Amino acid sequence: MQNTFALRGNLVYTPACGELALHPHSYLVCENGALAGIFDTLPARYAGIPVEDHGDKLILPGLVDLHAHAGQFAYRGLGMDLELLDWLEQNAFPEESKFADPHYAEAAYRLFADALTRSATTRFCLFATLHRPATLRLMALLEAAGLRGFVGKVNMDRNSPDTLRETTAESLAETCRWLEESADFAHVRPMLTPRFIPSCTDEMMAGLGRLQREFGAPMQSHLSENLSEIAWVAELCPGTRFYGEAYARHGLFGGACPTVMAHCVWSGEEERALMKENGVFIAHCPQSNMNVSSGIAPVRQFLREGQHVGLGSDVAGGAHLSIFRAMTDAIQASKLRWRLVDQDLPALTMPEALYMATKGGGAFFGKVGSFEPGYELDAVVLDDAALPTTRPCTLAERVERVVYLSDGQPCAKYVAGRRLF
Amino acid sequence: MQNTFALRGNLVYTPACGELALHPHSYLVCENGALAGIFDTLPARYAGIPVEDHGDKLILPGLVDLHAHAGQFAYRGLGMDLELLDWLEQNAFPEESKFADPHYAEAAYRLFADALTRSATTRFCLFATLHRPATLRLMALLEAAGLRGFVGKVNMDRNSPDTLRETTAESLAETCRWLEESADFAHVRPMLTPRFIPSCTDEMMAGLGRLQREFGAPMQSHLSENLSEIAWVAELCPGTRFYGEAYARHGLFGGACPTVMAHCVWSGEEERALMKENGVFIAHCPQSNMNVSSGIAPVRQFLREGQHVGLGSDVAGGAHLSIFRAMTDAIQASKLRWRLVDQDLPALTMPEALYMATKGGGAFFGKVGSFEPGYELDAVVLDDAALPTTRPCTLAERVERVVYLSDGQPCAKYVAGRRLF
Repeated sequence: MQNTFALRGNLVYTPACGELALHPHSYLVCENGALAGIFDTLPARYAGIPVEDHGDKLILPGLVDLHAHAGQFAYRGLGMDLELLDWLEQNAFPEESKFADPHYAEAAYRLFADALTRSATTRFCLFATLHRPATLRLMALLEAAGLRGFVGKVNMDRNSPDTLRETTAESLAETCRWLEESADFAHVRPMLTPRFIPSCTDEMMAGLGRLQREFGAPMQSHLSENLSEIAWVAELCPGTRFYGEAYARHGLFGGACPTVMAHCVWSGEEERALMKENGVFIAHCPQSNMNVSSGIAPVRQFLREGQHVGLGSDVAGGAHLSIFRAMTDAIQASKLRWRLVDQDLPALTMPEALYMATKGGGAFFGKVGSFEPGYELDAVVLDDAALPTTRPCTLAERVERVVYLSDGQPCAKYVAGRRLF
Repeated sequence: MQNTFALRGNLVYTPACGELALHPHSYLVCENGALAGIFDTLPARYAGIPVEDHGDKLILPGLVDLHAHAGQFAYRGLGMDLELLDWLEQNAFPEESKFADPHYAEAAYRLFADALTRSATTRFCLFATLHRPATLRLMALLEAAGLRGFVGKVNMDRNSPDTLRETTAESLAETCRWLEESADFAHVRPMLTPRFIPSCTDEMMAGLGRLQREFGAPMQSHLSENLSEIAWVAELCPGTRFYGEAYARHGLFGGACPTVMAHCVWSGEEERALMKENGVFIAHCPQSNMNVSSGIAPVRQFLREGQHVGLGSDVAGGAHLSIFRAMTDAIQASKLRWRLVDQDLPALTMPEALYMATKGGGAFFGKVGSFEPGYELDAVVLDDAALPTTRPCTLAERVERVVYLSDGQPCAKYVAGRRLF
């Protein structure tokens, strides 16, 4: 019973999309980092185990951020009056170039890792920058913080400023070395990260495909985010019928290569069919899609099709690291899409958004994002006492209020059974 | 020189829509509650006046909330999975009914007044509820807090639950009494508040028109928010060509009656022309328009037409009282509208959103919302030190970051030259 303990509080999770499981004032037992069960009263077989009693607070699964750029955190909330491709030129590329300097990278990634640690996010897929040493440093900071997830050294060998471009050979060699050096980390693992098709030559993509097969690393990139980007990809990749094919033809689109694709705002039927077939995860990033004027992804359609969908903050296309904010952005955007674009796709609901933010995205990491038996214990404890109201609230309503109104910072956080604070 | 003092800090305001005036480390001199001028160094004639030095912090005009429901604050962030008319039935009406109880009203309005005081909002147009005593209590709390603006006792005599409906005669008599009793307040003034056309009979509207002419009170209501609401109004008011006419035919649509209309999401050409002609103020409430699935108002069109436009939090259709949040919601919504609806109407920019949040809405209150000479000194001091970044920022960029990232709570606040905290 050494590695066994219990949390007590108001437990809420989503066993299925749209379904809210509510366990007021219950015990959640954790054995060896994984969930043993939820109980109204602690069973006799657990007598004497440590109980961390969180009183009347809310306990939710840790949140999952399926897409964010750690190397852009320094300019979140800046330059938001630009569209995607201009925004990349004027904001993203100059900032990311600075990560060649290890001192700058250290300072910037420390701020990022601190903010991510304080947030309700427990798992993530992150873009770093081109720079191997800085990327390793980011991984070390996140591992030391007790967080878990994937980080990618970015690849770029075309259509990039001189300060942020590698030769193809250099990029592949650095990536190979980085994959080897990442063996130092147990819980923050490497993920292949071609920035997006316009930044990567066919030769680069083919090389990354080979590395994928050699190392078995998963992969992340951007897909069908913005209409001008899609037109550019079509130009760059003659013979492809849709954007996703530009990845798929190199074996980098799900299947044997676990893949997260950010955005998919404009993914057509063929692209979505291939995503579904290959089990590609969609990182829905509603705030970023507003900020850089991309549009609104048809999330209801994704859910109907049985796609894997999680949420991404997409810092710094999104200004906010909070996945609670991503949940409400997703709901709000889906309402506008319903009203303005397609009344056959009803808006998302709070339980659906919570599912995407936890179990939906969590599935990329294995049994993560739920309080069902066997799931790794990622949990956040939320105190809504700072949000006083005269209206009596049910437990489900308290969750909705916390998601809409809180700053997204839990008062306690557990990752794979380990308490971080 | 008794009522003369200076603020020192980084002064930022919008003399015109889209134009940002930046005065780093400057002095703003206030005489008798109004702005005397901005100076790099304090002129000799002001030698010896008290200087409140806010160091490197940002100083902006106080923000203006042109539309919020004080009586709905208790359930902000709740029941957001509903569309407007269902949301009114299930959320708004049951909550507002409670304000018949003075004890409930006291507790609920205290929470609201505290939150509004801590926020960056200095001026407002607020809906209370039907209840005269509770409305007077709200006015007293806001006046005691040092805030300034308008509050309305709501009128409803049809299509409302039994617990939230008056007879026409009762409603008009109570409104008249409330207008008389409001004479107690110097800075929080009464505003006629027919809820919206579906809640008010023609007889009620005619009576309110008479009260308007007798007391000279301004007026606020809702206009063209939601398609199902508009269809309902057309049914209820045969012979009107557009929603606004249902107000205008009773003399309650601008002109001699200073008027704020919330939403105007679907206002057509004729309605907009009449608003322009009559100087009706538009309270743009982007978050609420998302939350209750109304749509996106064509704000760029309003600005081109020279309409008066300010921002509204529309709590609790909007979950957030912060007008900073309303600014970023307005920008984000305008980007989606540009992308999805009408590429002839470019997105709003940060300086335009700041204008609407200050001088645009402030014009309803006189010379309010700018740091130009003669304006009443409403100012908020913002400390962005809690938002650290490794990226050097210009003054304009610091403002953008604070608007996107801060919790909207200033560290000091001045209303008409008086410091609140």
